[in-house]
Amino acid sequence: MVNYKLILEYDGTDFSGFQIQPGQRTVQGELQAALNRLFPDGFYLTAAGRTDAGVHAAGQVVTVRTEKSYAPEILKRALNANLPGDIVIKEAREVPLDFHARFSACRRTYLYRVMTAPTALQRRFVWQISFLPDFDRLLECAEIVKRQNDFKSFTKAGAETEHFKCEIYESHWEKGENEWVYHITANRFLHNMVRILVGTMMEVGRGRFSAAAFEKMFNAGDRRAAGLTAPARGLILWRVDYEF
Amino acid sequence: MVNYKLILEYDGTDFSGFQIQPGQRTVQGELQAALNRLFPDGFYLTAAGRTDAGVHAAGQVVTVRTEKSYAPEILKRALNANLPGDIVIKEAREVPLDFHARFSACRRTYLYRVMTAPTALQRRFVWQISFLPDFDRLLECAEIVKRQNDFKSFTKAGAETEHFKCEIYESHWEKGENEWVYHITANRFLHNMVRILVGTMMEVGRGRFSAAAFEKMFNAGDRRAAGLTAPARGLILWRVDYEF
Repeated sequence: MVNYKLILEYDGTDFSGFQIQPGQRTVQGELQAALNRLFPDGFYLTAAGRTDAGVHAAGQVVTVRTEKSYAPEILKRALNANLPGDIVIKEAREVPLDFHARFSACRRTYLYRVMTAPTALQRRFVWQISFLPDFDRLLECAEIVKRQNDFKSFTKAGAETEHFKCEIYESHWEKGENEWVYHITANRFLHNMVRILVGTMMEVGRGRFSAAAFEKMFNAGDRRAAGLTAPARGLILWRVDYEF
Repeated sequence: MVNYKLILEYDGTDFSGFQIQPGQRTVQGELQAALNRLFPDGFYLTAAGRTDAGVHAAGQVVTVRTEKSYAPEILKRALNANLPGDIVIKEAREVPLDFHARFSACRRTYLYRVMTAPTALQRRFVWQISFLPDFDRLLECAEIVKRQNDFKSFTKAGAETEHFKCEIYESHWEKGENEWVYHITANRFLHNMVRILVGTMMEVGRGRFSAAAFEKMFNAGDRRAAGLTAPARGLILWRVDYEF
C-alpha cells in the first residue's frame, strides 16, 4: 500500500467543477482517467477541497492510495503526459498511509482577484468590474471577517454541513494596478463562502452597504442577509497546509 | 475627419492572427465588426504590427480614421461593449491626422515567455519546455543579437520585404522562478523573427549549438542556417512607441 500526495494546478474555466459527475467534464474525472492508465488495479482518491465550476486551483491537494508503486517523479511525469493541458501535477510525493488530503488539512488559502479595468489576457481568472470600489472600506471589511467565527449568512442556503463555524487565520486585501486581490486563510470553508464574502464586500466598496451593516449580516445566520455571490472565475484555491 | 489611436490587448489563442481573412476568426475582423456598428459610414484602419495566429498583444496600436467623432472615452467603452472578451481596448485617444499606427512607430517591443515547469494557468501564454537551458548561454546569445543588423537568416524563407535590416535597441533575458522571459525592442521586425531567434537561442541553451555558431548564423543570410521556430503562444507584442 502506498499513499501519494499530489499538488494540482488547474484552470477551472472549462470544467464543471472538481467533483466527478456523469456526462460532465470535471477535474476529478480527467484525473481519474489518467490514474486508471497507471493504476489499472485501482486506487482511492481524495481531494482537500471540491472547487465549484469555473473555480481555479494553484495548490489543490489530492491523495491517491494504491497497491502499485512508482517513484514520485515518474508518477508526476506520467500523469502530466496523460492529463489535458488545463490540469497539471506540480508536485508528487509519498506520504504516510494515514495522511488524508481532506482530514489532515489544517489551513486552506483562497485568493479572489478583481480587476477594475477590462482585460483580455487575465479574463479567465478575474472578476471584471466597471466601478472603482473604496479600498479603505474593503480593508475594513476584511478586518471584520477576521473577527467572525460563524458564516451561516455567507453560505448557500440549505448547505449540507454540520455547523457553520470557521476559524479565520488571515483576511486581507492587496491592491495592485487596476487589480485587487483578497486573501483568506481558514481551517475550513463553507460552500460559496469566499464568493459571497467578496460579492458582499464589493457592495460595501461601492457604497451600497456600510461596513457596520456588513458586520451585522454575520449575526443574522441567514443567506438573505448577505449580498451578491461573486463570479467563480475570480476564485482560486491557492494552497492547503498540513500538520505533517 | 478624426484620427483615433487605440491600444489593444488580446489573447491570440483563438484567432487566426491579426489580419482579416475570409472565413477565419481574426482580431481585425472582430475589431472591424465592432467599428462598423459605431461608424456605419466607414473608417480606415491600420495596425502597428500584424501578429500571427496564436500571438498575443498587450500593446498593439491601431489607428482609425473616420468622419464621425466620439469622445475617446465613449468610443473606448462602446468598442469594449461590442468586442468579444479576448480583445480589449485599453486606451483610446485622438491624434493628429498624420499619425499612422504603422509608419509613425519608431520602436516595437516583444516579449517571449518560456516555462521550464508545466503550467495549467499560464499555458496559453508560454512555451513549456521540458529541459533546463543554460541561462548564461542565453544571456550571451541576447548580447549577440544586440550587435546584429541583418536578420535574413531569422525570417521565414521567401518573406516579402525590401530589406532585412533591423536596428536592435534592447535584447535581454530575464529569469524568474521556472520562467524565462526574452525582451526585444527594435525599429522593425521581420516575419517570424522573434520566434526563430528564441527557438535558436533555446537550442544554444540546451547545448545543441555554441554561442559562436549562433553568431555565425547571421552571416549566412539563409533561413536554413538558423534553428527552430518557437511556438506562437509564448510571444506577445508588448508595446509600440512613437516619435509623437
